[in-house]
Amino acid sequence: MVETELRRDPITGRSVLIDLTAQPHPNDFLLEPVRQDDEPAACPFCEGREGNAGPEVLAWREHSAANAPGWSVRVVPNRRPMLRIEGSQAGRVDGIYESWDGLGAHEVVIETPVHDQPLQDLPADRLWRVLWAWRTRLQDLKRDARFVSAVVFKNHGRAAGARLDHSHSQLAAYPIVPSVLHEKVRGAEAHFDRTGQCVFCAITAQELLDGRRMVSDTLPIIAITPFASRVPFETWVMPRVHAPRFEEASDETLTAMSVVLGEVMAGIDWALERPAYNLVLHTAPFGGGDDRWFHWHLEVIPRVTRWSGLEWGSGIPRNPVSPEEAARVLRSANPRRGGL
Amino acid sequence: MVETELRRDPITGRSVLIDLTAQPHPNDFLLEPVRQDDEPAACPFCEGREGNAGPEVLAWREHSAANAPGWSVRVVPNRRPMLRIEGSQAGRVDGIYESWDGLGAHEVVIETPVHDQPLQDLPADRLWRVLWAWRTRLQDLKRDARFVSAVVFKNHGRAAGARLDHSHSQLAAYPIVPSVLHEKVRGAEAHFDRTGQCVFCAITAQELLDGRRMVSDTLPIIAITPFASRVPFETWVMPRVHAPRFEEASDETLTAMSVVLGEVMAGIDWALERPAYNLVLHTAPFGGGDDRWFHWHLEVIPRVTRWSGLEWGSGIPRNPVSPEEAARVLRSANPRRGGL
Repeated sequence: MVETELRRDPITGRSVLIDLTAQPHPNDFLLEPVRQDDEPAACPFCEGREGNAGPEVLAWREHSAANAPGWSVRVVPNRRPMLRIEGSQAGRVDGIYESWDGLGAHEVVIETPVHDQPLQDLPADRLWRVLWAWRTRLQDLKRDARFVSAVVFKNHGRAAGARLDHSHSQLAAYPIVPSVLHEKVRGAEAHFDRTGQCVFCAITAQELLDGRRMVSDTLPIIAITPFASRVPFETWVMPRVHAPRFEEASDETLTAMSVVLGEVMAGIDWALERPAYNLVLHTAPFGGGDDRWFHWHLEVIPRVTRWSGLEWGSGIPRNPVSPEEAARVLRSANPRRGGL
Repeated sequence: MVETELRRDPITGRSVLIDLTAQPHPNDFLLEPVRQDDEPAACPFCEGREGNAGPEVLAWREHSAANAPGWSVRVVPNRRPMLRIEGSQAGRVDGIYESWDGLGAHEVVIETPVHDQPLQDLPADRLWRVLWAWRTRLQDLKRDARFVSAVVFKNHGRAAGARLDHSHSQLAAYPIVPSVLHEKVRGAEAHFDRTGQCVFCAITAQELLDGRRMVSDTLPIIAITPFASRVPFETWVMPRVHAPRFEEASDETLTAMSVVLGEVMAGIDWALERPAYNLVLHTAPFGGGDDRWFHWHLEVIPRVTRWSGLEWGSGIPRNPVSPEEAARVLRSANPRRGGL
C-alpha cells in the first residue's frame, strides 16, 4: 500500500511528495492564528494618514484630491524598498562572484482604507479595484525599458511574512527574470517545443475533463488545486483561454477573477480557519518573446505548513493534503456549487 | 547610495538580495524561541523507551545490547516515513501528469539519549558520533541499487519544521536526484566544463584569500558564510581540499568537522540567541559520475526570517544581514580566534 506519491509539476519539472492517506498528523500543521498586532493609531496605511504612507502613484478615488482621504485603493512606493529605481545596470565581478545594484521598483498596493479588513472580506466590486490597481501599475512599469519582468505578491499574516497588518499587496519590477518565473517560462517553452501547445492550456483542458482538482469552472476564470501542489490547499486561478499577460486582461476578465478569487479565498478561510497566506501573480516577462507559451495565473498559497530541512535539502516539499481532497473541500464551500 | 545588492550564487546561478545597510528592521526577524513542548515522559527517543522509537539499524554502544539502554547515538526507521522501501520504480502517466510511488528510505538519527540536550550542546566527541552515524548509514544506503542519492537534514525548533523536541536528524534516500541537489550538481558540472575546476574548491580558495566571509580556517574543514547567503548567518562547513563524498570522509576529517561545526553552532547560538535552525548535508549522487565537480558540504540555516510572497513569487530571497557582517560576528564568537 503506497501512502505517499512523488508527483512532477508539468511546468517546472519539480517534484512534490503528496500524502495520500488523507489523515494528516496534527504536527503537520502550523496553527498560527493571524493576529492584528499593529496599533491602528500608528498604521501608515489607514485613511487619514496618507502622508505617512507616502505620495500615491495611483489611487481609486471618486471625488477626492490626491493624497487625501476618500479612496478605496491606493498605490505608493515601498518605504523600505528592496529594489530602487536609482542604480547601475552594470554588474560587478569579484573573482568567481557577480553582483548588481538592487535596481527595480517596489510598490505597495493598500487594498482598503480600513485597518482590519482583510482582502478576503472585500466584496467582489472592491476586490475588482485591487485587481485594477495591479493591472494599471503593471502597464506602467512595463513602459520602463530597464525592467524586464514584474511579480505581484501579497503576504497575509506574520506566518506568511507580512510586516504590517493593514491589508496590502506588493509589486516588484526586476531588471532580470527572477528564478521562479524564469523556471516556469523555460518549462513552458520546452513544453511548447515538444507539443506545440501552452502547458497551462493543456492543464486547463485536462482538469476541466477530469474534475477531481477543479474548484471553480463556470466562468472565464477557473480555479484548480494543482496536481503537484506544494502546500495544503494551494490553488491556481487563471484564464480558461490562452492569455499571456495579466496586464492585458479586460474589465470583464477582472470581474470574473474577482468573483472566483473571492470564492477561493472564502473557501480557504473556511477550510483552514482563516490561515495566513501568500498570493503570487505571474504574468509573462515584458519582452513579448514568451507570449505563445506563457499564460498568466495567480497562486494562492496557504501557509499552514513549515518548510523543514527536507525542503531546504531536497527541494521536494511534503504536502500532507492531496489536491484532490483540497478541491473536494473547496467545492463543498463554494456557494455557486451548493453546500456540503 | 546602493542599499541592496543582487548577488548570484556561483554554483546554482540563483540570486539573492542582500541588504547592505547593516541595520536590519526588527520586523525582519522572526523571534520565535525554541521551546521544549513535548512531555519527556512520552518522548519515544528517550533512553529507556527504545521500543517506542523502533528497532535500531545502527547505534553507538559500549557494552549494551541492541535496542536496550546504554547508547549515545541510535538510528531507527522513521515511524511516519515519507519514503518507503516497498513500491514500484515504474512511473504512472495520466495525460500530462506523471507520478511515482514514494520509494526510498527515511531514517531518524537520535543524537543523544537525553531529552533536552540539543546537538549544539554536545561536546565534540559526542558530535563526532553523530557524524559517524551519518557516514555509516550513507555507506549502507548507497549499497541499495534502487537509491541514486541521499540527503541528511536536521530540524531544530518548531520554526524549522521539527515535530519532536528530542534532538534528532534524518536521512532520506531517493530513487532520483532531488531538485536542490540536482541543481547544485549540474551547476558544478557547468563550472567544471568552463574552468576545469571544482566550483567549491574555487570558492574555498577565494574565501581563504579574501577573508571577509571566513568563519573558521585553521583545520582541514573550513566554515564560510556564502557570498549569496539566503538567510542571516547561513554558514557552510566543508573540506578544504576536494572531496565529493561525505560517506568517504576519514575519522580525522570527522574530528575536524565536529570541532568546526560545534564552533559554528555555538557562534550562531550566541549571535541569534539560540535560534531554530536546519542542517543540510549534501554529498555527491551515488553513481560516481559527478565526483570530479561535486564537493560535499554542510549548510547551517538559521530560521530567523520568514519566507514571504516575495520568495515564493521570485525565488530571490531578501537577506537582511550581509554574509560579511555575519562572518565578522561569528569570528568574534570563535574561541580559537579570541573574543570580541
